[in-house]
Formats: sequence, structure tokens, C-alpha cells
Amino acid sequence: MLFFENDYGYGAHPKVLEHLAQTNMEPVSGYGNDKFTASAAEKIKAAADCPDAQVYFLTGGTQTNMVVIDTLLRPYEGVVASSCGHVNTHEAGAIESTGHKVLTVPHKNGKLDADDLREYVQTFYADASHDHMVFPGMVYISHPSEYGTLYTRNELERISAVCREFSMPLFLDGARLGYGLTADTDVTLQDIAKLTDVFYIGGTKCGALCGEAVVFTHGNMPKQFVTMVKRRGAMIAKGRLNALQFDALFTDGLYEKICAPAVKLAIKLRDGLKAKGYRFALESPTNQQFIIVENSRLPELQSKVVYSFIEKYDAEHTVIRLATSWATTEEQVDELLSIL
Amino acid sequence: MLFFENDYGYGAHPKVLEHLAQTNMEPVSGYGNDKFTASAAEKIKAAADCPDAQVYFLTGGTQTNMVVIDTLLRPYEGVVASSCGHVNTHEAGAIESTGHKVLTVPHKNGKLDADDLREYVQTFYADASHDHMVFPGMVYISHPSEYGTLYTRNELERISAVCREFSMPLFLDGARLGYGLTADTDVTLQDIAKLTDVFYIGGTKCGALCGEAVVFTHGNMPKQFVTMVKRRGAMIAKGRLNALQFDALFTDGLYEKICAPAVKLAIKLRDGLKAKGYRFALESPTNQQFIIVENSRLPELQSKVVYSFIEKYDAEHTVIRLATSWATTEEQVDELLSIL
Amino acid sequence: MLFFENDYGYGAHPKVLEHLAQTNMEPVSGYGNDKFTASAAEKIKAAADCPDAQVYFLTGGTQTNMVVIDTLLRPYEGVVASSCGHVNTHEAGAIESTGHKVLTVPHKNGKLDADDLREYVQTFYADASHDHMVFPGMVYISHPSEYGTLYTRNELERISAVCREFSMPLFLDGARLGYGLTADTDVTLQDIAKLTDVFYIGGTKCGALCGEAVVFTHGNMPKQFVTMVKRRGAMIAKGRLNALQFDALFTDGLYEKICAPAVKLAIKLRDGLKAKGYRFALESPTNQQFIIVENSRLPELQSKVVYSFIEKYDAEHTVIRLATSWATTEEQVDELLSIL
Amino acid sequence: MLFFENDYGYGAHPKVLEHLAQTNMEPVSGYGNDKFTASAAEKIKAAADCPDAQVYFLTGGTQTNMVVIDTLLRPYEGVVASSCGHVNTHEAGAIESTGHKVLTVPHKNGKLDADDLREYVQTFYADASHDHMVFPGMVYISHPSEYGTLYTRNELERISAVCREFSMPLFLDGARLGYGLTADTDVTLQDIAKLTDVFYIGGTKCGALCGEAVVFTHGNMPKQFVTMVKRRGAMIAKGRLNALQFDALFTDGLYEKICAPAVKLAIKLRDGLKAKGYRFALESPTNQQFIIVENSRLPELQSKVVYSFIEKYDAEHTVIRLATSWATTEEQVDELLSIL
Repeated sequence: MLFFENDYGYGAHPKVLEHLAQTNMEPVSGYGNDKFTASAAEKIKAAADCPDAQVYFLTGGTQTNMVVIDTLLRPYEGVVASSCGHVNTHEAGAIESTGHKVLTVPHKNGKLDADDLREYVQTFYADASHDHMVFPGMVYISHPSEYGTLYTRNELERISAVCREFSMPLFLDGARLGYGLTADTDVTLQDIAKLTDVFYIGGTKCGALCGEAVVFTHGNMPKQFVTMVKRRGAMIAKGRLNALQFDALFTDGLYEKICAPAVKLAIKLRDGLKAKGYRFALESPTNQQFIIVENSRLPELQSKVVYSFIEKYDAEHTVIRLATSWATTEEQVDELLSIL
Repeated sequence: MLFFENDYGYGAHPKVLEHLAQTNMEPVSGYGNDKFTASAAEKIKAAADCPDAQVYFLTGGTQTNMVVIDTLLRPYEGVVASSCGHVNTHEAGAIESTGHKVLTVPHKNGKLDADDLREYVQTFYADASHDHMVFPGMVYISHPSEYGTLYTRNELERISAVCREFSMPLFLDGARLGYGLTADTDVTLQDIAKLTDVFYIGGTKCGALCGEAVVFTHGNMPKQFVTMVKRRGAMIAKGRLNALQFDALFTDGLYEKICAPAVKLAIKLRDGLKAKGYRFALESPTNQQFIIVENSRLPELQSKVVYSFIEKYDAEHTVIRLATSWATTEEQVDELLSIL
Repeated sequence: MLFFENDYGYGAHPKVLEHLAQTNMEPVSGYGNDKFTASAAEKIKAAADCPDAQVYFLTGGTQTNMVVIDTLLRPYEGVVASSCGHVNTHEAGAIESTGHKVLTVPHKNGKLDADDLREYVQTFYADASHDHMVFPGMVYISHPSEYGTLYTRNELERISAVCREFSMPLFLDGARLGYGLTADTDVTLQDIAKLTDVFYIGGTKCGALCGEAVVFTHGNMPKQFVTMVKRRGAMIAKGRLNALQFDALFTDGLYEKICAPAVKLAIKLRDGLKAKGYRFALESPTNQQFIIVENSRLPELQSKVVYSFIEKYDAEHTVIRLATSWATTEEQVDELLSIL
Repeated sequence: MLFFENDYGYGAHPKVLEHLAQTNMEPVSGYGNDKFTASAAEKIKAAADCPDAQVYFLTGGTQTNMVVIDTLLRPYEGVVASSCGHVNTHEAGAIESTGHKVLTVPHKNGKLDADDLREYVQTFYADASHDHMVFPGMVYISHPSEYGTLYTRNELERISAVCREFSMPLFLDGARLGYGLTADTDVTLQDIAKLTDVFYIGGTKCGALCGEAVVFTHGNMPKQFVTMVKRRGAMIAKGRLNALQFDALFTDGLYEKICAPAVKLAIKLRDGLKAKGYRFALESPTNQQFIIVENSRLPELQSKVVYSFIEKYDAEHTVIRLATSWATTEEQVDELLSIL
């Protein structure tokens, strides 16, 4: 059975496991007050070229979005996101559970558009009754987006400029950042560190068992952040677990080294399917491909491949997602192409 | 340097790591919909002899307390706990962050007393203005308690009886359950499953890297529990991580096998220190020992042993905690005894 | 200066004030446990022909929406509303402050469409990942809507049918219900009581100083509702204040008697303006009229009339709102027509 | 039937009602943007001699406590109160509903002691694990206290000094402030304005139908306070209602003029009962008297007087509360004395 269901189906990259095993019997203090956490943070700051940054390791993506947004917003503010933003659609109301509204702008190709953002904010402040409304307090974007698309550097710069004009911190959700950085893109990790106020580097989907590294890019971690993390049940006693995985992933460029092949294989898959006449729900340059399949093909496919159902396309077609990961092999892609 | 600071300073028990490594390249679905999760749940249900139970794996203790309490309480209810209950003192207000009050009863030797509990509830309902007060909606106890003490079976039965009389679910926090079950006690895992409505088996402090297994003992998991877990950012994509660790811990009785020596060593330490004339803040039968040390001894001690500061005892003395764990060796305890 | 800014600019209808004054020195118990509250509730139940209903008096509209929605939803649920629903736009995130998401469907002429609602809910349940999404737990509609429009009985019946099919309580916000019931409509108070699960009768905008009467139409007031009201700071000590005003408004049909002339005057204004060639943002049959005015006319208008700015229509025009109320006189409308 | 149940059993003082009636047909803008609100605020600032203060009118006491505390605390902070503080006992968890813990210190004669407060805060900061605990973020006191007792100026000064030392805003709940200011006391309204950061002047229990005036004493109203008030459902459309009542109460010293007789009558009652040999639960200098009555006397008493049951004193006695108010007459007190 071929596995293309998602990019979190396997365990951890072997080097990550190895690092956990090698350090296993070395006792350290808990809650992130340990040398592994310090080491991983330093490596990330070096990789992103942001020496004034503060790095904190959390366990999962929804948790990270919830904690970051909750700690940055004031009580009367909400977070602006594209309508397809993960925080708006698939986090079971985690943001609202902290008392904040997700303010949405229709997405364009999975992304938030800088002009739409500016218009949203200007309209808000122009409204005579905006004191009775939720203030746009920060901006959330995903890179890659929920549809696998990527912002260009120019797009990020323009969003960043709107955010700074209206004093709204910009938060970038990098759950799949590894697959974004290694795609055909002009956006680097350093660009992201420069253009955002906070972002996270996804571990869970990029080679770790769990873990996301939150980077406050310019010494702007909220006061008593650790207490607020604890308050949301998001602090783990063995802080080493999340940190050690990033320590391995940011040694010798492992993070990008293991994501790059996944993207390459996804592009091979995409181009191969295009050659066979398949249509795509949208053009994705990263490790997730959204293809349109005839319903009649699905039963056979299901018997050979694990994939994700996305949505009905029309009466006869369905959109499915095929995802590669650091664990995908070229043989698997070839076999999938031969099946499809 | 000897490490007696806590029971979460090392990584995972080698058999746990081994199980993670052996299953690493086997792809499975995410979010707990996998065979490892199913297997671990079955083993726990068998060990606790509660075939109708539902098991869910979370990542940390505060998170588990927060999720369980939040999902069991109605909006107008609070949770009753002893004044030293972890949810009342050291979770940074996690329970309150979900909108619920922690209702406290003074502790006795670290424990909640059944008669005090009954009186609290009876006084509440007798109060003419109780509609303006927070209703006692459930009861929280820790076993072992925050001070390492243990409930007897009779004490648990009496608390359970009060809970059932007033229709309050009883929740037992078993962050260190392994060290409780293997101490000198008449309380078994099966007793706990019978007498409580929900409890959790601590993994983080008993051999795992992370993970706590929540057991709803009689098919009473709240409706849409998974959505509420997700809403609190408490669901991890690789559900296998928590589950596989419990799958290892509940194979061939590993959980108790690795905790029993830790308790035995703690008792050796306790008795050895008693013989040397040390006094204890209280009598603990489990892996945490709270000893009273002259302040003048601390500088030397600090140079040789990592321990936890608990509180000032008086002008000349300090209470410190020494904790053993599955990773502690008899040599370490002997060396500690020779130092003290 | 003519006052057409809104329908809450004056104090209370004289008969309401009179009732407050006449009962002023009669002492009663607090928090709604008084004979005035009982009397007002009975009158409302009789007027709405719903003998099994439970009536509770709150102070303001946003408060009422917040309390009703918060107490009806389960933690994993949100409220479905039209995109222009007051709870979505102008309540400063009150619903989100209770931890719940507002799930929106684009409005049609200010209203929620039954087919759109059905499709929203069906799409939700058809989504394979809906356990990670906010469940549609109840439905909110305003009657009259935020744009002054009205549901027909058939439209309400169809919405009600969808709600019952999917077990979602239907909540009708009647902040301006008096102006809705007395417009050209086939919807009666009894219809509303039959077709909804809970609704509120607006007092603040229909003759009272403050106060909204929440009606749980079939004995379905949530358990310990009073405690949850208190918990939200929404209970007033002198429960008599809200209740006495409704007691007056529901004596001899005062509520509709004082709202009917306001609607009649609004229609006179509308038709008069139409005759003068004015255009309207939409067709409203109730006491709020949304007219399109040339920007060049505004300075003079502002010097003679207090109105509400709604939004820019285009570069040369603005949408303004003119509202009548129980306090508006025919002379004022005539004078306004002569000015415009 | 004599009414001594509480101080909110009657309507409003006649001059308050009269002011509402006289201004009734004057239209003004809503939500507090009106001249009545401005006028009342100015009168209060003059009376309290705090020209830089900001005044906001809310509707009830629990609402006021909830809004003030929620808007002043940061997410990781709680409010320190005495164990008998209203926010801790009789507000149905309103503070917790906003996500904050009430941190308690045992009360002394109904009051918070400055030394106890200092010790609480010092112990907190001395705790090595205080990052895992709820920070003491502000201090709440009631004056008069829940038991009718009063702080001396010196006691307030000492509490204020601790608050300033640890940068915790001091909030004084003045639900019954009128009865406190007119008792035998050395504390004036100006003292309170000087020594606290925010306080409220109770209207509901001191002559108004509803309404509490929040005073931020030195320009320290939180940013976007109005939006946060709206977000909690605490803003009323007819802001005039609360404001006009205070406008009347702060004209010609009405507030104190009508509370002083109530206190005088309470003292007459107290001294009269003492002369008859009655014992008191504690010594109260204000309008609430807590007396110990033999249970055998209660049936007859109930047939002639409405009072409040407080608690069982012992097997044969009960503590009841007798409260006077601005509406109490000397004849009523004399009659009550003759009955008791």
C-alpha cells in the first residue's frame, strides 16, 4: 500500500531519533531550562540570521497558533487571516476558545493579498462604529498556505508593510516551512525573520515526531510568555523532547536537506500527472498536490494508495490530496504514477 | 553530579525508545486514528480491568487536567480540589483560563478528606444564595499527592461515595501513578478504575518522553471529546508518539516494573536518612522525599547533588525534595547517602 | 434640531415611567424573585400564546445575545448567523469572548436564507475532517434584520425546519421586534413563539429605558440559567427595573400600540422621499430607512437633523439611516420631508 | 410587614426618578456619548477631588467587578482578594469566566490586612516556581466590606503602599459606598480617590434603580475600555439611564444626604438590640447589622419582618442580617425594635 495521505504519517527522521537516543541518559532540568533547548535556539537564530530573536519550542501547530495569537492580542483585538487560514477553518475554534475573533479576508490562491488586507483595515478605521467592533490586532498567514502555495518575497514585503503601517504584528505559520523553503521560491528563512514579527518552524510535518519552534524575531516575546504557555497547558516537563529534535534538524542543514527531496518528488509527481492529462485544483509548488480525479477511478485507487479526500469537485469528480514527505522515495512516486 | 532534582530529568526508558525506533518507518493515519493507539488503549483497559473504558492519549499533565476538567464541567460549575492540588497551585491558572473556578478544601497530609468534602458540598447546598455561587461540579485528587502521600483504598472509597451521592465525577491525577501503585499500598490500578470516573496514567514522569493516558472508566467520555481536545490545542498530529510509549509501558508490565525500583530506592534513602537523624517535612511512601536540611549544609550539597528547593522551614532550615525515578541507580542512592 | 439618529435617543414611554413611579416605594426581593417579574412574564406568555415558556429579563441586546448563545451552545459548537448579523459585526466580539465562533453565511437582503443554511450544515457534516471544525450548534437571526427587513412566515418556517432537522436551536433577536410586528407582515408574536426555541422581545428600542425579555418557548431554559446569567455579570439586583417596564409594555397591548405609529411614520417618510426621487440602499418595511444622499447635501442636513452615517455609497453619495421611534411625531416627519 | 431584607428592595430615591422623568423627552446620542453622562462624570470628579479621573457608568456590581478586573489584569495575572471578598464568593465565578483566578488571603473582620497582603506577594516572588503560578496582578477590597465593616484611613494607606510597591493596581468595590462614607469613619471620598487606582461608587444600593460609577482615579482607564465593556455585554444603549441617576445623586450632595439617615437608623437599631441583650456576629458601623437570634424566635419574626438568613450560628442560633437603606424610616426601626 502506497502512503501519500499526508506528511505526518511516519515517525521521525532517523537522525532525529538518533539524537534523542544518544542524549537519552543525560539528566537535565525540565521546562526548557536545559542546554539542549539553548543549543537548538542558537542554531535556529543563526540559520535565520536574527541574533535578537527569542525561540520557544511548542508541541503542535494548533497549539502554537493558539498560544502565539492569544499572547500577542489585546482583549479587544482579533487576528486577520485569509478565509482558508488554518486558524479559521480547521482548529476547532481554538482561537475563539481564547476569546478572540478570527477576522477574515477572502483568499486568493490560498493566500492573503496585501491590498485586501489594507482595505480591510482602512474600512475598519473609517467605520464610525468601530469601537463596537473587533479591532484588527495582528495578521496571520501560512507559508506554504493550506493549499500548498507560496508567497513571493514581494508579496511578503507588501503584507509586512501594511502590518507595520497599522502596528499589527505579522505572524507566519510555517507548519510546512521546510517544504516551502526548498521549493522554487525567492523567499529564504532570513527573509521571513526580517519581514515577520513572529513565525514558527514546523517540526511535526518536516521530520520530527512533534515540535514547532516559535521565533519572536526581534526580542518581542511577550512578557511572562512561559507563564502563558503553562496556562494553556502547552508546556511539557521534558522540554528536551521538542528542543533536541530541532537541535538535530538544524545541524548541518538537515531541515532543508530532508525537505528538498520531498518537494522534488512532488513536482515529479505533478508533472507526471499533468503529462497524463490530470487536472489540478490549483498549481502548487510544494509537497502537497491537489488533483481532480474521476469518481469512478477512486475504488481502485483506494485499494492501492492512501490519499486524502479534500472535496467534491463536481458530480463526477473529486479533489484528492497527495502529499510527499521526507520519508517518500522515488520508487513510491514512480509506482504511484504507474497506478494513476 | 548526582541528579535527584525530579523524575523527569532523563529521556525515556530504553524499551520505550526502542519501540519508537522499531515502528518508525511504518506509516499510519494521524490524530490517534492508528493501530498503535488502539493497541495501547486495549492494553491499558486490560491492565485496569475496565473493558468499557475509553482511553485518550494527551501530552502533558497540566494539559490533561485542563482538558478533562473543562470538558466535564458545565459552565456554572467548578472543580473541588485540596488546597495543595496541582490544579490550584502550579498550573498558572490553566483551569481558570477555561472559565472555571477551583474550589478548595484544606488538605490533610497532602490529601482531600472525604468528610471535609461532604461538608463542603452540604454547606454549599444549604446556603440560601448558592445560585449566586460556583457549583461543585466534580472532584480532583492526585495519587500520589503533590507531597508524595497516598490514599488508602478506604479513603478512596469514601471520597468516591461522596462524589456519587452528589453526582460529581471523580477525577484522579496520576502524574506519578507508577510510583503510587508500586509503593506500600492497598490501592491497585483496578481499584482506581472502579472508584473514579476518569483518571490518567502518567507517562512523562514514569518512563516516557511525554504522554499521559486518560481513562474514562465507564464509557463516559464527553461527546465530541476529540473536537474539544483539538480546540484546546492538545491534539498532536502524530498520535502514534504518545500511544507507542504507552504501548511499550503496558507490555509485560513494564510500567510497574520500572517504577518499583525507584520507590524501593526512595525508601532506602528515607530510612538511611532517618538513621542519620534527618527530619522529614512529612512521611512519604513514594519516590519523592521531602527532607529538612540545615541551611549551612546547602552550599556543599549543591556542589554535588541536583535537588529541588521546596520552601524555607525556619530561619536555619530548608525543605528540599529528593526524587528518584526509573533511571535512578542504587549506586547513586548510596553515594547520596554518603554525602548527606 | 430634528432627531432621527436612532430609536434609543429618548427616555421611556410615559406609561412605562409612570409604572416605575407608582410601584417605587413597594419593597420586594431582589434578583427577579418578585411579583412584578412574575406578572410581566405571565403577560408575555399570554401575548405570545406559549404557556410552557420561561421568561427572563436582561438589560441590553448584546448582553442578551451573549448570555443566550453561551448558555445554549456546547463547548465545541458555534452559532450560525448571516454575515451581517449583529453578533458577527457590532458586538465587539462578545460571542467570541465566551469561547464560541460565529459561523457565517452570506446574507440576502439582510436575512439568512434557509437553503443557504441547509447547505452550510450539510457541507459541514459531509466534510471528512469536521471533527476538527466548529460544529454548527444553533442558529441566530434578527427580526427585523440589521437592515430593517423582515422574514415572511414562510421564510421563518423553512429556517425553523432546517434547525429542527439538524437539532440546532433557533434564536431570534428581536431588539426591534415591536417595529417588526406592526409592519406590513404576516408574522405574529405567536408565530415566533411557535417557530423558534428562544427569542427576545426588545425593550430598549421599543419604549423602555432598558430591558430585553428572553423567552424560552417550550420549557427549554438551560439548567441553572440564573447562575450563568450571574456569572456573566448580567443579573441586576433590582430585577423589578426590567420587569416593570415589560409589565407596562404588555398591559393593554401597549408594546404594539406605541410601535405601530413609528412604522407608519417611517413608511410615510419612505414614500415621501421616493416621491422626491430619493433612492434607498434597500427596501425596508420597518422603522429604519436607509437612504442614499448626495454628499453635497450633507452639511446642510447635519445642521438640521441628527441622523446616522452608515457607509460611503460611491464617490458622490453616502448611505444614511433615518430611524423613527415610539417618540417620533408626524410633525417631525413632515418637517424632515420638507428639509430633504 | 417590615422590610429589612436588604438595601435594594425599593425603587429609586424620588429625586432620582424625578430627574429621569424631567429629562425623558430630550433626545441624545447613545452609548454614553451624551451630555448627561458628561455632567454626571464632572460632578463625581469634583466630589472626589480627582480632576484627572475618568468616569464610566455600568449597570450592576458583579458586572463592574468583572469588567474592571478583566480589563486591568494581564492574562497571566489574578486578583488578590480577602477570602470573603464578593468576587470570591458570590459572583458565580464571574472573574474566572474571564479567565482569571481569584487569589485569596484569609479575611480579618471582613477585611484584607496589609501585612497579610505583603506576605502573600513576597512569598509568591520568593517561590522558585512562581513562573508556574498565577501572578498577583491587582488587589480588590470592598468598602464597606461584605460584613459591613470599614477600613480606617491608615489601613487603606498601608494597603495602598503595598500595592504601589509591587505595581499592583488597587481596586475598591464601593457597592455600598454611601453607607461607608456616612458612618463613623475617617475615610472620605477624596481619600479613596487618592489611595486607589480605580473604585466604584455604588448606585443600586444607594438610591438608584441601577448603576455603578467606575472611577479610574488618575487617567488610567485601559485603552479601548469602551470596546471591552461592549465585548462583555456591559454597555447599554441608553447610557443616559445610569448617568442621569448619578447626576441626581451627585447634585447638592444627595448621595450622602440619603445614606446618612440609613446608617443612623442602623446604629439606633444596633444599640437598641444591644440594650435588649442581643449578640452580634461582628461589630458593624454601617447599614448592615448581623445579629444572632435564637431559632425559636424565627417563626414569629418571619411573620412580621422580611430579613436575610446568613448562616447557622450553632444548634440553637442563627445569624440573620437586618439592613436599612435610604428608604427606611425611624418608625420602621422603632417597630422592629419593639418586635425583637
